[in-house]
Amino acid sequence: MKNTPSTLVIGLLFGSLLGCQHTPIEKSNLQIPQQLQQKALNSNLAYELVESLTVEVGPRLAGSEKDLIAVQWAENKLNSLGFDRVYKEAVQVPVWYRGEAKASILSPYSQPIVITALGGSIATPKAGIQASIARFDSLAALKLASKAEVEGKIVFIDHVTERHITGKGYGKTVGGRSRGAITAAEKGALAIVIRSIGTDHDRMAHTGMMRYKEGVTKIPAAAMSNPDADLIKLMLKRDPNVVLDLFMSSKRLGYATSYNVIAEVTGSSKPDEIVLISAHLDSWDEGTGAIDDGAGVAIVTSAGKLIQDLPIKPARTVRVVLYAAEEVGLVGGKTYAKAHQDELAKHYIAAESDFGAGRIYQIDYRVNDKAFTALQTLSAPMTHNGVVMGNNTASGGPDVSMLPKQGVPVASLRQDGRDYFDYHHTPNDTLDKIDPAALQQNVAAYAQFAYLMAQSEIELRPIEVAK
Amino acid sequence: MKNTPSTLVIGLLFGSLLGCQHTPIEKSNLQIPQQLQQKALNSNLAYELVESLTVEVGPRLAGSEKDLIAVQWAENKLNSLGFDRVYKEAVQVPVWYRGEAKASILSPYSQPIVITALGGSIATPKAGIQASIARFDSLAALKLASKAEVEGKIVFIDHVTERHITGKGYGKTVGGRSRGAITAAEKGALAIVIRSIGTDHDRMAHTGMMRYKEGVTKIPAAAMSNPDADLIKLMLKRDPNVVLDLFMSSKRLGYATSYNVIAEVTGSSKPDEIVLISAHLDSWDEGTGAIDDGAGVAIVTSAGKLIQDLPIKPARTVRVVLYAAEEVGLVGGKTYAKAHQDELAKHYIAAESDFGAGRIYQIDYRVNDKAFTALQTLSAPMTHNGVVMGNNTASGGPDVSMLPKQGVPVASLRQDGRDYFDYHHTPNDTLDKIDPAALQQNVAAYAQFAYLMAQSEIELRPIEVAK
Repeated sequence: MKNTPSTLVIGLLFGSLLGCQHTPIEKSNLQIPQQLQQKALNSNLAYELVESLTVEVGPRLAGSEKDLIAVQWAENKLNSLGFDRVYKEAVQVPVWYRGEAKASILSPYSQPIVITALGGSIATPKAGIQASIARFDSLAALKLASKAEVEGKIVFIDHVTERHITGKGYGKTVGGRSRGAITAAEKGALAIVIRSIGTDHDRMAHTGMMRYKEGVTKIPAAAMSNPDADLIKLMLKRDPNVVLDLFMSSKRLGYATSYNVIAEVTGSSKPDEIVLISAHLDSWDEGTGAIDDGAGVAIVTSAGKLIQDLPIKPARTVRVVLYAAEEVGLVGGKTYAKAHQDELAKHYIAAESDFGAGRIYQIDYRVNDKAFTALQTLSAPMTHNGVVMGNNTASGGPDVSMLPKQGVPVASLRQDGRDYFDYHHTPNDTLDKIDPAALQQNVAAYAQFAYLMAQSEIELRPIEVAK
Repeated sequence: MKNTPSTLVIGLLFGSLLGCQHTPIEKSNLQIPQQLQQKALNSNLAYELVESLTVEVGPRLAGSEKDLIAVQWAENKLNSLGFDRVYKEAVQVPVWYRGEAKASILSPYSQPIVITALGGSIATPKAGIQASIARFDSLAALKLASKAEVEGKIVFIDHVTERHITGKGYGKTVGGRSRGAITAAEKGALAIVIRSIGTDHDRMAHTGMMRYKEGVTKIPAAAMSNPDADLIKLMLKRDPNVVLDLFMSSKRLGYATSYNVIAEVTGSSKPDEIVLISAHLDSWDEGTGAIDDGAGVAIVTSAGKLIQDLPIKPARTVRVVLYAAEEVGLVGGKTYAKAHQDELAKHYIAAESDFGAGRIYQIDYRVNDKAFTALQTLSAPMTHNGVVMGNNTASGGPDVSMLPKQGVPVASLRQDGRDYFDYHHTPNDTLDKIDPAALQQNVAAYAQFAYLMAQSEIELRPIEVAK
């Protein structure tokens, strides 16, 4: 009853939008999204799921014992929620052991600093590495450095990640984490320790994946907390020769089997066509994986459950995919794309929730330009949930980012990520960082999206592949 | 020039206040506090000092090697600032070695948790302690528990510290930290792990001093981070038998010599009378001791320097005391009180800055009731710096809290402590938590306070001893 005024607003909005659209919008396309929103905003399921995952499983690094416990957890939950179909698909995932990571400044003033090993890094020698620091403002500055500036030193990339609602600051600095060790090693560095890719001022280092390159010496790679990077910068102001002692015992341990865990609501009239909503089940090992990506798991599972519970199922199949091993290289996403190669033409659209639990403020698409306006009109019920219509340049999220190249349309439901990189990939990624009301709003948006896409009669293909 | 309107306001304020006061207020008592404020707000000295202390010394646990480096740092700084007199006084301080502290939940769901040893704690056996948790809402609840509820278990005090401008939430929970191990051991507990005394949601545990009692078994004592306490609470909802594995290698190592470091501006006409402004030089060992109490050291040193630089020195001596070993039991403060026993009658008033770098919003006193109104009138220039006149029930700060019992009047310059217990006693106590502008405001308040007290002609004694 209390929603009557809002219903009117939506009605008026639609009245005006419908006047200039070709696509017929069924009455159910208006009423059901409203009902889904109402149900989502009144349900604690998503919070219960992320609580359950973080409390009963916790950290679940790809390839670890806990990773398989998480897979079992997911299968049990999806089954108990009554999805039409629940199954898993094997994924070969790289296994990495974190071990210990310790560092201290030896000179000019001895102080311990807080670091964490970057995912995939090798160890230092047992006696550690003691060397002077070569500081650079960015990966770009390191690339311009001479070998003489770097050789025999520990490279310190002192890039600063800016806070932004879209998280775009991360994109500007993450190269230093993922590719810094290669550039540093090419110039003869002994190790690399970057300023954490994080917007916080906490004495916590942010981990995350790093890469080596065939033919380039592998060197240990770590991140230090922002306050520790500040400290080193202030020491360098006093003395250009800052000496670090670095010890790490991390190692790569080959491969293990994990699983993409999948649930489906079978489509009522086009069951072979797929609307894919997804998240990743694995997490880094220092927090409990609440915002990355317990939230996403909870959001898409709860959205799928709302579709499952509809008295009349939508036309297309809604497939909820919980990917394995996103953190260590989008492994689950890549494996899915390969395993479902023959079925990709039947994927109507795909999206992944992997940016915490902040409210969704916008939906972007990547569809045929001619379909874009009609699709926005179709999605208009989402505006009532605070989601405005965005652009047509979406990537869809990490694990579905390889699908557009194969012709699959994607959507990005943009979350408010202003605090996401305060906690991302740190011990601080815990349940208390999730606002239950924002989580509900996310569920509403994904449920509306999944329903509207599963019912849509708009042809979204072919999409522009090159971006 | 830009201060002309403010000067008028102060003038008008004083005009009206003077009408009902007995104490003559010299013109210099108005002009000089204004000048001190202006100089303080234009000076970076305090920030430079706290930067220097945190970068060039860093963590300085009482009795450690770094503690003596801090003493040397302080002597050098105070000498280089040109105080009339700089000296140090030996203090015997207890020495404690933190060692390692690790814990994990073994059952019902295995997860590592973040803990820190409480200061003074003994170690666990080398194999650690594996035992079920007995949870209590508070120390008071633990006191009411039967031996059967506690015996053979690890006590978990799950008290929550509330955020408040005065920091009063700390006072309500800190007993669980300082005295919890005694009560737990009296009922047969094997160890105690409290929820951190902190208002944050960071995955960092807050250390701090704990006590044992002669005749009661010593048990290991640690604190866990707030998110970890939440986690255990949620596990206990699922299974009343939560088993913890606790390992600590901390130990007490006897005593060492540290120093109270003291600087003075010699009074021009009553040099044997003392206005004491103070802070503590030692810090906990996990952060760099920026807010606790590098800020205080910087504030009172900078305030003293402003007095030192006045063309005409105030009547009384202004003594800046940087105490040793506050964190481990107010050791420097107690030693000072004893060593200066014969001189305490000449202490006009004392105050300590030990609550971070938040702005001072109020000044409280503890003086003879009849002197209180006149003292507030005298202090009125401080209002222009945002400091309102408070009450007559001050404690003066930790290291001067024993002085009122000996008849010494004290003042508490109340700082906004809303975020103090987010960082207090954690690795997060670093320079970036200090707002340079708020630090300047503190210096202005302490400089005004020291000057006005050193010039005051109000008799502050005798004070009420019993509170």
